[in-house]
Amino acid sequence: MEIVESKTALRTILGKSRSAGKSIGFVPTMGFLHAGHLSLMRRARQENDLVVVSIFVNPTQFGPNEDLDTYPRDADRDTELMRSENVDIAFFPPVEEIYPRGFTTFVAVEGPMTQVLCATSRPTHFRGVTTIVAKLFNLVKPDKAYFGQKDAQQVVVIQQMVKDLDFDLQVVVCPIKREADGLAMSSRNTYLSPRHRADAAVLFQSLAEAQQMIAGGERSASAVVRSIATKIGAAAQDAIIDYIAVVDAETLADLETLQGDILIALAVKFGKTRLIDNIRIKGLGPNCGGPCR
Amino acid sequence: MEIVESKTALRTILGKSRSAGKSIGFVPTMGFLHAGHLSLMRRARQENDLVVVSIFVNPTQFGPNEDLDTYPRDADRDTELMRSENVDIAFFPPVEEIYPRGFTTFVAVEGPMTQVLCATSRPTHFRGVTTIVAKLFNLVKPDKAYFGQKDAQQVVVIQQMVKDLDFDLQVVVCPIKREADGLAMSSRNTYLSPRHRADAAVLFQSLAEAQQMIAGGERSASAVVRSIATKIGAAAQDAIIDYIAVVDAETLADLETLQGDILIALAVKFGKTRLIDNIRIKGLGPNCGGPCR
Repeated sequence: MEIVESKTALRTILGKSRSAGKSIGFVPTMGFLHAGHLSLMRRARQENDLVVVSIFVNPTQFGPNEDLDTYPRDADRDTELMRSENVDIAFFPPVEEIYPRGFTTFVAVEGPMTQVLCATSRPTHFRGVTTIVAKLFNLVKPDKAYFGQKDAQQVVVIQQMVKDLDFDLQVVVCPIKREADGLAMSSRNTYLSPRHRADAAVLFQSLAEAQQMIAGGERSASAVVRSIATKIGAAAQDAIIDYIAVVDAETLADLETLQGDILIALAVKFGKTRLIDNIRIKGLGPNCGGPCR
Repeated sequence: MEIVESKTALRTILGKSRSAGKSIGFVPTMGFLHAGHLSLMRRARQENDLVVVSIFVNPTQFGPNEDLDTYPRDADRDTELMRSENVDIAFFPPVEEIYPRGFTTFVAVEGPMTQVLCATSRPTHFRGVTTIVAKLFNLVKPDKAYFGQKDAQQVVVIQQMVKDLDFDLQVVVCPIKREADGLAMSSRNTYLSPRHRADAAVLFQSLAEAQQMIAGGERSASAVVRSIATKIGAAAQDAIIDYIAVVDAETLADLETLQGDILIALAVKFGKTRLIDNIRIKGLGPNCGGPCR
């Protein structure tokens, strides 16, 4: 595995591979890798000649009162994990390599998609995400780029950007990796106190219960949201619900009645730690008045 | 010359050339080609294996009360001119190919650079320019892209975007082409009445006179601006000056004292037709109290 810090070195190495006709799979991360990230690398390893992983805690996607400074970092551990996944190139740029003095260009997906869900409490977040991802796409020029379904809104926003700006690559979305009790893996889970860590299992449990309600015929978004909120409230008494939403999986538009491809997404704060989770359900038909066959 | 309308066809043809190791030179235009555009094609022809020209009147760079609908178009003439310049690929996309329903992603260079000069009267113009140019760069993936110095602010903004978003290409800036009387060539010159066409020659004459003043030792920006305004006012009595500015050539920051690399830019309306012109002067030293030797 080559460890690369400069854009020039990255371009030189990748230019040679590209000229040799090698396909490039790219996994952009903020490091502090967990099994979710590793599943993206494994998928990239299966599907490409060369696997590039970037480790960069991107300042432009953090708000002024967020956890940029305390975001967990462990370059040595990340390096070992990438080696064990047979990653070819680890790109570890310093901040000034990505955002030099005078940097002032932003890529933004505008409209409802970046105004709902996480954007309500993180209004500048997705603009930071699309800007860094556009830059990394231009640096790496991958054939395929891998993202986790855990960040459901990010995935939808990036797919919109790729389509709108004609990036010549395929976005591959990989399923959420979960801990034994169902908690979605996240670098931010390390922030949780033991009690909050235990309580946080209710997030996935409440989503799984909602999925069962829907399988049983429930088609009212408000009934689904109410059920999730009640379950979280009962199990984690000091949890603060940021949002629980039932939306169209492609446009993220709010739904009253569940139909088609839907996304149930939530963000909940445990102490200072904000966690997100979601489930996608595809091809929902209308309520058939009981468990659908 | 191949004429291509779809993004898919463009990608297929260019993918083959790229795999064969051919370099790609790209000239993005809004059509109604004149000698300025042709000079960009000639330069691209000299420096690349393959020359791609796009002809697309980009709606996102026009304001609501601007001349999008009346902007001059002549596809047949443009096609003949491109053939005569040995262009390899003419990309003529329809609007819906570039901006399909649901399009919502924009690239914007923020800050002073896109708030001064032309941005004062055209506040959304450069966001439209950077968005279309980013899209075309992603579609064509050129090694070199050619722009005219006539659109001085556009050149600076695009160079900033290329640097900030890590586009892997070289921006080549070509000198302004002028009519016999000095008027900078522009597709919009066809709008001018015979009297305004004659009057408009004063734009370059006033810039040339300013250049002589500076060669003679003048270093006061306001004296230069005053001289240009006086000359235009005397020669073209119904011309309306949008701006006359002396700025740093790289940052476009206003200058009081001329020093270093400077840009003198102006925009003037003749009837409904807004014309722009500029001169760049490099490496200006301080005033030496008379003609500098």
